[in-house]
Amino acid sequence: MRPVHGGNLAWAAAVSGCQADTILDFSASISPLGPPSSVLVAIQSQLGNLRHYPDPNYSELRVALSQAHQLTPEWILPGNGSAELLSLAGRELASLSATVLITPAFSDYYRALKAFGATVLGVGCLSGGVSDEGFSELCLPLSPLPPIPHSDTPPSSMGLLINNPHNPTGRLFSRASILPYLEQFALVVVDEAFMDFLPDQEQSLISLVQNYPNLVILRSLTKFFSLSGLRLGYALAHPDRLQVWQQQRDPWPVNTLAAAAGVAAISDRDFQQQTWDWLPPTREQLFQGLANIPGLHPYKSAANFLLVESQQSCSQLQQRLLQRHQILIRDCLSFPELGDRFFRVAVLSATDNQRLLAALREECSEC
Amino acid sequence: MRPVHGGNLAWAAAVSGCQADTILDFSASISPLGPPSSVLVAIQSQLGNLRHYPDPNYSELRVALSQAHQLTPEWILPGNGSAELLSLAGRELASLSATVLITPAFSDYYRALKAFGATVLGVGCLSGGVSDEGFSELCLPLSPLPPIPHSDTPPSSMGLLINNPHNPTGRLFSRASILPYLEQFALVVVDEAFMDFLPDQEQSLISLVQNYPNLVILRSLTKFFSLSGLRLGYALAHPDRLQVWQQQRDPWPVNTLAAAAGVAAISDRDFQQQTWDWLPPTREQLFQGLANIPGLHPYKSAANFLLVESQQSCSQLQQRLLQRHQILIRDCLSFPELGDRFFRVAVLSATDNQRLLAALREECSEC
Repeated sequence: MRPVHGGNLAWAAAVSGCQADTILDFSASISPLGPPSSVLVAIQSQLGNLRHYPDPNYSELRVALSQAHQLTPEWILPGNGSAELLSLAGRELASLSATVLITPAFSDYYRALKAFGATVLGVGCLSGGVSDEGFSELCLPLSPLPPIPHSDTPPSSMGLLINNPHNPTGRLFSRASILPYLEQFALVVVDEAFMDFLPDQEQSLISLVQNYPNLVILRSLTKFFSLSGLRLGYALAHPDRLQVWQQQRDPWPVNTLAAAAGVAAISDRDFQQQTWDWLPPTREQLFQGLANIPGLHPYKSAANFLLVESQQSCSQLQQRLLQRHQILIRDCLSFPELGDRFFRVAVLSATDNQRLLAALREECSEC
Repeated sequence: MRPVHGGNLAWAAAVSGCQADTILDFSASISPLGPPSSVLVAIQSQLGNLRHYPDPNYSELRVALSQAHQLTPEWILPGNGSAELLSLAGRELASLSATVLITPAFSDYYRALKAFGATVLGVGCLSGGVSDEGFSELCLPLSPLPPIPHSDTPPSSMGLLINNPHNPTGRLFSRASILPYLEQFALVVVDEAFMDFLPDQEQSLISLVQNYPNLVILRSLTKFFSLSGLRLGYALAHPDRLQVWQQQRDPWPVNTLAAAAGVAAISDRDFQQQTWDWLPPTREQLFQGLANIPGLHPYKSAANFLLVESQQSCSQLQQRLLQRHQILIRDCLSFPELGDRFFRVAVLSATDNQRLLAALREECSEC
C-alpha cells in the first residue's frame, strides 16, 4: 500500500528493509531546524501534569496566538493538527452546493470533502504549464489565483478551498487575486500551512479575517516548528463559526503537551528569525543543484519544499533512492494532475541536501 | 461559566482564587496511581522523534491492544481520546431514526449526538431511585439495563448508547441484560471507559464484538493510566465500520507520544494489578466515610468514583470546598435527572480521601 502522504517512515522502512530512524526523509515538508529547544523545554515541563485534562478553552495558547496575529482570542480555535480543522471545514463546505478546489490538491482535501459528501469542482493552477510563474520582489513565484470558470451553480452558494503557498507546486497566490472571491463565495477556506516560512507575510489573508465572516484560515505549527508527531494547528475565523465547530468535536482535542509547545513556539522569535535566514539561500542552493542534474527540472517555490519534474519514472526513482541510499522522496502519484513524472522534496540542511543531490546525480546518470 | 465536565482546573482556580496546581481535584475520575513510570519512560523516549509524523496505521499500538483483547488489529481503531471516537459514533448514530440513551448521561453524549442532528430518546436508569441495586459476587452494584419502552420507531432502525460501568452512578449493567438489545438495535455503542478498573471484566462486551457487526465498544486509556492530558482511547468494532470512521477523520489523530504511551501502558501488568489491589478497599473506605457524614448518602460503585446524594445544595457545597479547602468536587448540574442534590467524587489516595472527608464533615456540620 503506497502512502498518499509524505513522512510515512513505517512504509519506507518496509520497502527499504532498514530501520525507520536510518532513513533521510525528504518526503515530509518539515523544517530541519526544529523542534526549538524552547519548545522541548515547555513539553518537558508538562510531563508531570498529564493526569489533568487540558484546559478546554486553551486560554493560554489562544492568548499567545491572538497576540501574534493581533486578534482577540475568540477568533482563534486550536486543533489537533490543522488536519483536524480541515475535517471541520470539510463538513461545512459539504453543506454548500459545491466546493471549488485548486488542483493539484493535497489528497486530504478530497478526503475531508468526500467524507461529508461534498461536490468538488477542480480548477487547475497548471494550465499553461507549471513554469509560467511571475515573481515577487523577493524572487518568490507569485501567481494570481487561476480564474474560476463560470458554472451553473452561483458562487454565492459555493465554497472555495485554497492552499497558499500551494502544495506541491510551491506557488504563492497573490492576496489581491483571492480578494474578489471573498466577495462572491459563500465560504472561502485558505490553508496557510506553509505561510509562516515566508518572512514577509504580505500575501496572508489573516489581516482580513475580521472583515469577512465567510473567511476561514487554517494554520499549522508542526511544519515550521518540526512538531508533526505532536499535532498542533489552529483556525482563524469568525467567533460564531468557531463556536459551532467547537460543538462538533470533542472538548479536549489538543493535548496538554501540544498546547504548551504552541505557547513556547509562538514566542520564540529567535527560532523564527533563524528559519527565515536559513530557508531562502538553502532553497536556492538545492534548486540550483537539482537544475544542474540532467533530466530534472525543479520549480521555484515560496515554501520549504521543491516540486521537481523528471524525465524518468519518479516512483522507480523513489524506490532506488530508498533501497540504495536510504533517502525518501515524495512521489506525486496522489496528485492525478502530476502523476509519475514529478516528485517533491523538502529543503533540509545543506549537508543533507548535498546527500540528496549526490544520490540523484548517481541515479539519474544511470538511466 | 460553570463547566459541564470534571477536571476543569482553570475554572476552579478562578473561583477559588488560588493556583490550579494547589487544588485537590476529586472532580475528574482519574486514577491517583499513575501515570505509570513505564509510560513516562516511553513518552520521554519519543521526544526526539517529534519531527516525524505518527505512523498513520498506528501498527505497534494496534498490535499491543489487539493482543490484550485477543482480536486482530483491524478490529481496533485508536483515537485522540475516546472522546474523538464518540464524535464518530455520534455521527453514525445520528444517521439512524433515533438513539436511545441511558440517563443520567455524560453531557458529551448529548453533544456528540446533537452535533449531527440525532434524535435522542432518554431512558432513565434511576426509576425506583438510585439505591435499588443488585450486587455481584464481588459486592459490585450489578444491575440489569433498564427496560427500553416500546416506541413508534422499531429498534431495528434505532441506535442504543450505553455507558458501562455507568457514569455518574457507578452502576455495572450486566452483560446478560444488554445481550437481547444486540439482536434488536441497528447499532449498539457501549462506552466502557471505566471497565478496566474492574479486575473481573466479565460484564465487558469485548468478547462479543466479532459476533455482532452492529456493536461498537469505546475504551479509554486516560482514566486508568492517569493520562487525561495526553488523549488516548480506542474503539473495538467490525473492520468495515472502522475503515469508514478512519476516512471521516484526519490521518494522524493520535500523537506520537500518546501512541508510545499506549503500548507501554497496555504492557504494564504490574501497574494494572496494583490498581486492582488498591481500588476496592480504598473505595469502600471512602464510601463508609461518606456514609457516616450526616446528610450525605453515597451509592455503591463499580468504578473509581462515587455518586453522593446530599441534603444541601451541592453547587454551594462545591464552592465552599473550593474556597475554604482548595478541594474540587464534581457537581451534577450537567445531569438534569440529578441536579443540585448530587455530587460525584473520584476515589483518590487514602490520605487525600481523608482530607476530603474532613472538609466535608466540617462543611456539612455547619448547615
